Amino acid sequence: MAIAQGGRGRNSARLRRYNERLLLQVLRRSGEASKAELARRTHLTSTAIGSIIQSLEESELIVYTGRRTEGQRGQPATLIDLNPKGAFGIGVRLDRDSIETALLDFGGNILARRVHDRTLPSPDEALALVQADIEAVLEAITPEERERLAGIGVAQPFNLGAWLKQLNLSQPDFRAWDEVDFAFELGEATGLPVFSENDGNAAAIAELFYGCGREYDDFLYVFMGPVIGCGVALNGDCLRGVTGNAGDIAVMPVPPGNLPSAQKPAGKWDLLLSRASLNALARHLRHSGAIVASHADLERHIRAHHPAVEEWVEDCIDALVPPLHSALCILDVPVIVLDADVDGGLIDLLQRRLAAALAESVAEGRSVPELVRGSFGSDAGAVGAASLPMFFSFSPRAEILRNRGISMEEVRDAD
Amino acid sequence: MAIAQGGRGRNSARLRRYNERLLLQVLRRSGEASKAELARRTHLTSTAIGSIIQSLEESELIVYTGRRTEGQRGQPATLIDLNPKGAFGIGVRLDRDSIETALLDFGGNILARRVHDRTLPSPDEALALVQADIEAVLEAITPEERERLAGIGVAQPFNLGAWLKQLNLSQPDFRAWDEVDFAFELGEATGLPVFSENDGNAAAIAELFYGCGREYDDFLYVFMGPVIGCGVALNGDCLRGVTGNAGDIAVMPVPPGNLPSAQKPAGKWDLLLSRASLNALARHLRHSGAIVASHADLERHIRAHHPAVEEWVEDCIDALVPPLHSALCILDVPVIVLDADVDGGLIDLLQRRLAAALAESVAEGRSVPELVRGSFGSDAGAVGAASLPMFFSFSPRAEILRNRGISMEEVRDAD
Repeated sequence: MAIAQGGRGRNSARLRRYNERLLLQVLRRSGEASKAELARRTHLTSTAIGSIIQSLEESELIVYTGRRTEGQRGQPATLIDLNPKGAFGIGVRLDRDSIETALLDFGGNILARRVHDRTLPSPDEALALVQADIEAVLEAITPEERERLAGIGVAQPFNLGAWLKQLNLSQPDFRAWDEVDFAFELGEATGLPVFSENDGNAAAIAELFYGCGREYDDFLYVFMGPVIGCGVALNGDCLRGVTGNAGDIAVMPVPPGNLPSAQKPAGKWDLLLSRASLNALARHLRHSGAIVASHADLERHIRAHHPAVEEWVEDCIDALVPPLHSALCILDVPVIVLDADVDGGLIDLLQRRLAAALAESVAEGRSVPELVRGSFGSDAGAVGAASLPMFFSFSPRAEILRNRGISMEEVRDAD
Repeated sequence: MAIAQGGRGRNSARLRRYNERLLLQVLRRSGEASKAELARRTHLTSTAIGSIIQSLEESELIVYTGRRTEGQRGQPATLIDLNPKGAFGIGVRLDRDSIETALLDFGGNILARRVHDRTLPSPDEALALVQADIEAVLEAITPEERERLAGIGVAQPFNLGAWLKQLNLSQPDFRAWDEVDFAFELGEATGLPVFSENDGNAAAIAELFYGCGREYDDFLYVFMGPVIGCGVALNGDCLRGVTGNAGDIAVMPVPPGNLPSAQKPAGKWDLLLSRASLNALARHLRHSGAIVASHADLERHIRAHHPAVEEWVEDCIDALVPPLHSALCILDVPVIVLDADVDGGLIDLLQRRLAAALAESVAEGRSVPELVRGSFGSDAGAVGAASLPMFFSFSPRAEILRNRGISMEEVRDAD
């Protein structure tokens, strides 16, 4: 997986890398396969497959899992599968009220994690804390396995300092966060490659790499967290947008809601995050006399069918439906993947009510989207962050090939 | 430009084709260039550039335009540019109330066109009519030039039979259109390759290939026609969507408008096309006593500053702003390209008012989009349709390379 530097040989390395990733994707999607199956599914020759498999085996990304008789004649075919211990990723999720660090393996298992439920401190303090957490989670793997760390993923809201009023947060000073490149600092401090995305995109990437992406190439991912998050999967890749903030559903304009707990917006329109977010649910519960000090409290009220939960769900669905229709109109994707930071039945309830409301309001001649439950629930943040080094290192993104000529003379160097 | 068929050699043809198109794109964007400049901008070796130039010259897609002295020493460099007569495209634009056929050259010039302002007839009748029009527009080029026809583009609304009420149309029977594959029929009848897109995407593709795409890779294209149309440019390609209907802004939900001419929607939300469309303008003008029988009438009332025009503009901007913010939130593109089917000052007026309204309502921490005037006005439909064969035959789309392995062994065949 070494990346050739400089002139000649760069294109060939790009091609080679793309083909390796395509093969890994086939294995991720359909599980163990023989060389013949891999050649068929990637449209590569068996010579090319043989050479790629050899290199992936040397990198320990794949393992031989056994043999299977194919057809009537000949030797049983050797079967190949991903090696769950073939690569590791560290995920760091920063939010306004928590810091989480997790270690994930190539098979998508969380091997270790550290969580701090606290208001985000200054960047310097956070850096020291995250560095210590990274050291701690790395204890879960051997020094030899650490050689196969793909890097660190950092997931955080697009701008931490905005909408504190709408989110019902006291006014901590997050301005320092808008001026610091935390991912860069973390890279300098650890010497590891760092990949950074907003939290919605990171969770969508986790779905693409480890979750619904095994079945769907195109979907809108919606995460009901303290703020509502979103990411867009197109053609098996994540739409980043020009500033890395595509899928920014939270600030879509919606009419003001009807809950007495809601703050009146300054103008005619409110932002979606004011109505469709766990912060809005917590605010409404508190307004109704309930005590909400943690996610566990939220989940308890949801399980107990507190009347304020039902009131919020109704207002939330009312707020969500037009922005979701709008997003689907623009993107023309057939699936919404819905997940949430708490459960207690909330995800299923939202999914059911949203499906009904979307079907009822779909425009003439347009199809009703399929609603699919997300794969990670409250782990979406950690898995999302840790998926970033995996996705960017091992997914066959067209980006690898695009916008530069691929020189055929140079390709020969790669064989 | 022959496409190799079958197994070996297919990948190499794909690579070769991608590189040729990349070079054509550089010429399209920055005009005439020397071989050294082309090598630098495409990141290809000069050997590769030499071979590509030879093949493009044989296809007559490029011409030598002169010589220029570069630097201090050596021979003046030969300059290369696109040959405007290197390729031709036919565009067929079907709409509910018109049929238009145009012939475009590689330089983006409309060489001939035929227009019928009439309610769309049955598919059979339309096919005969379009075939005759194609014969007629082809008279504008020589038999030798006809050898370089890239094909036919068909642009039509996504579903012709919907929203006849909202569009204030009497109820012609367009159901036959939902069951016919007109592009396929036209291909069978003419023996030419046919490329089909909805009208919004086609016009966005025209901007990408011949207009704003020379400067911008990412934009939202909005066309104020009888119905509002839209297309999405991402990374220099057109977002098609899973059913080919991305950018379907017309059916985005909006609150009902305030104009007395408006029809009340059945539910709480109306569709954007009911308020932001030339049909809505015509309806409001008629409601105010004006006579509107044609686009020329519309333009006359716009020029005369008929009070109903100003009333509609206000309601139209009020309707447009939230959907545009929503679209930009999802896509994270920094530019809106705005065009319209009539002018008389309307495009500039809408652009000015929209820019002010978007700036006023932008969410905290988000940037105000740049508003750019479209390149084609009422020609957008014809140029859009005729751009399709050009774009799909000559643009370096990642699609050419994606989702299959590129076999390095096979690439050698291409040299």
